[in-house]
Amino acid sequence: MSFSPGQMLGEVRARKPLVHHITNYVVMNETANATLALGALPVMAHAREEVEEMVVLAGALVLNIGTLSPHWVEAMLLAGKAANEHGIPVVLDPVGAGATRFRTDTARRLLDEVNVAVLRGNQGEVATLVGVGAEVRGVESIGIDSEPADLARRAARTLGLVASVTGVVDHVSDGTRVLSIANGHELLAAVTGTGCMSSAITGCFLAVARDTPLEGAAAGLAAFGVAGEDAARDAKGPGSFHVGLYDALAALEPETLDARARIS
Amino acid sequence: MSFSPGQMLGEVRARKPLVHHITNYVVMNETANATLALGALPVMAHAREEVEEMVVLAGALVLNIGTLSPHWVEAMLLAGKAANEHGIPVVLDPVGAGATRFRTDTARRLLDEVNVAVLRGNQGEVATLVGVGAEVRGVESIGIDSEPADLARRAARTLGLVASVTGVVDHVSDGTRVLSIANGHELLAAVTGTGCMSSAITGCFLAVARDTPLEGAAAGLAAFGVAGEDAARDAKGPGSFHVGLYDALAALEPETLDARARIS
Amino acid sequence: MSFSPGQMLGEVRARKPLVHHITNYVVMNETANATLALGALPVMAHAREEVEEMVVLAGALVLNIGTLSPHWVEAMLLAGKAANEHGIPVVLDPVGAGATRFRTDTARRLLDEVNVAVLRGNQGEVATLVGVGAEVRGVESIGIDSEPADLARRAARTLGLVASVTGVVDHVSDGTRVLSIANGHELLAAVTGTGCMSSAITGCFLAVARDTPLEGAAAGLAAFGVAGEDAARDAKGPGSFHVGLYDALAALEPETLDARARIS
Repeated sequence: MSFSPGQMLGEVRARKPLVHHITNYVVMNETANATLALGALPVMAHAREEVEEMVVLAGALVLNIGTLSPHWVEAMLLAGKAANEHGIPVVLDPVGAGATRFRTDTARRLLDEVNVAVLRGNQGEVATLVGVGAEVRGVESIGIDSEPADLARRAARTLGLVASVTGVVDHVSDGTRVLSIANGHELLAAVTGTGCMSSAITGCFLAVARDTPLEGAAAGLAAFGVAGEDAARDAKGPGSFHVGLYDALAALEPETLDARARIS
Repeated sequence: MSFSPGQMLGEVRARKPLVHHITNYVVMNETANATLALGALPVMAHAREEVEEMVVLAGALVLNIGTLSPHWVEAMLLAGKAANEHGIPVVLDPVGAGATRFRTDTARRLLDEVNVAVLRGNQGEVATLVGVGAEVRGVESIGIDSEPADLARRAARTLGLVASVTGVVDHVSDGTRVLSIANGHELLAAVTGTGCMSSAITGCFLAVARDTPLEGAAAGLAAFGVAGEDAARDAKGPGSFHVGLYDALAALEPETLDARARIS
Repeated sequence: MSFSPGQMLGEVRARKPLVHHITNYVVMNETANATLALGALPVMAHAREEVEEMVVLAGALVLNIGTLSPHWVEAMLLAGKAANEHGIPVVLDPVGAGATRFRTDTARRLLDEVNVAVLRGNQGEVATLVGVGAEVRGVESIGIDSEPADLARRAARTLGLVASVTGVVDHVSDGTRVLSIANGHELLAAVTGTGCMSSAITGCFLAVARDTPLEGAAAGLAAFGVAGEDAARDAKGPGSFHVGLYDALAALEPETLDARARIS
């Protein structure tokens, strides 16, 4: 690869950007701890009364629709527009798009009204948002009618953003180039909210890679994947793996990331 | 016992049913991870705009009133009625019934308006709902004026459901038969939300035992109890026990469950 | 020191006071588990329909503004006033005061309308509330224009309460005396919500030290700090430290606390 994920990680550690999350109830603690373990500063704030003021302090905004309600959608729109006005990159995680109309419509509305830098979702969610046939079961992607790399490129072109489609191998595209990231471990699928965590980590990297969102998104997934590999080494199951993931994110060195990132 | 909890566990693993939770903020992550560790797929969704659409995708619905507010009660009613229309079993966890009128009234309203398959609560909560004298302190049951097996039978008869009353020994009744489950460990009482987790696991088992809710509820408690016994083995306290619980749920084999379930 | 933190811990264990938390979504599980690990009983309830009824069952009320919305502010005011009427001590954690007007205004409103026994915050939050220059970044305190012990004394005098200002060394003051607590470990800063946990633990101690809030607040921070030191011993990073913190809180003996508390 022609860029250094490790250098980006070093910048996260040096600059400790504030990352503003408006996310779901299930993973608030987990995404905050992943952000902190990587080296950035998380803040969670969802009130319409404060999101515009909070987001301008941040280096990135992460919107995650995992447990929606109408007031939260309004807050996401307000925060997203304020982020856009100030050039702060926005990550959208369309959790469960395709499972209910409310989620699909909300994800589409956010994509319409907010300039999203990176859309980070599973194959079923992203396929839903670009009109490719997909089966989503709750918040799990079951199957899609497209090859993942093609899906990422198509989503990026159609939606005018960087599409970050995660799976066994992840694919990130700006509509022209496609980077594939082959890091990670199957235990990541055994813990709730690891997809949300990967979106949080994407936000941390975007905060220091505002002008290179394709590379930032790929570096974030590589960092999270390498941490997953490290956490799996001593794990006895999903519980100890989950704990080890924070230890591994905090222990991850820039040189290790560069050496082990499998981005092509 | 005349049925195989292990076979049910095997079916959960094979069919990976979606389990829809409308639950409290305290345990959302924990019940999702318990569901996933056992082998089912959790989904959390509480918006009135989507719960009816989400629940019909599910194999079971788990309603938990641990941190109530009026909008959530409406969503629980909508989801519960939609589940009923589609024959999807509903588990109700009446957290804190007896502590405040709002909780008692909400639990009663859910029991009135929704056909609940299994009511899973502690002794004080269940006693409150059938009018037996009980002392509930916050969300803890302090004492009741009834023998637990009688309480379970009486609740099942009065409310027309399977009552699953947990304690040092658990009692599950359909109004005629009473099964007692003697698995578990005292460290389960040292971690917040283990009662809620047992309701979540009950939902997973009901998804594959729709026609035998008595056996399904008993099998769920046995599985959770055996996992608790396993997690306690290497635990140094409530923190490491909590982590070990997910490892143990994921590692639990059907044959082990059949061999160690203490259901009588 | 002229009092025994260990004796207070022993009373928490003996009396198991109910501690009512109205707190943020990020740390609900964590503060409940910290409360339980220490030996008290947590209850989370935020509905305006029930908070006044719930709080009168409690030995202390902990208000935490970490993820605000208007309905929650109303519930905090209702619960705080009911606690005041019944002589139940109130702890306020002004998370992020100084970061947005909504948080600063809400913290001020709670201080105006509720008789708060202990204000537990970081330096930037407390400085904001007494008008000392401070930089708050999201929910992190970056710098203040005051010496921490002076800040604690000034906050206590200005606001008429016990100010508990945490940092590398903590300072607790009633406006006259200042106690400094030198326990803790740097890994506490690597886990989200440890400040919130220290407020929760403060609530547990106040429930048994209603008439000596200065000593109660100091003892709570010492207990949490000693647990942090113990948890750090075998930690491999923030994940395992977080888990170990609950184990350490549960294992903390009164005599150990007295021997190791560094209060001066």
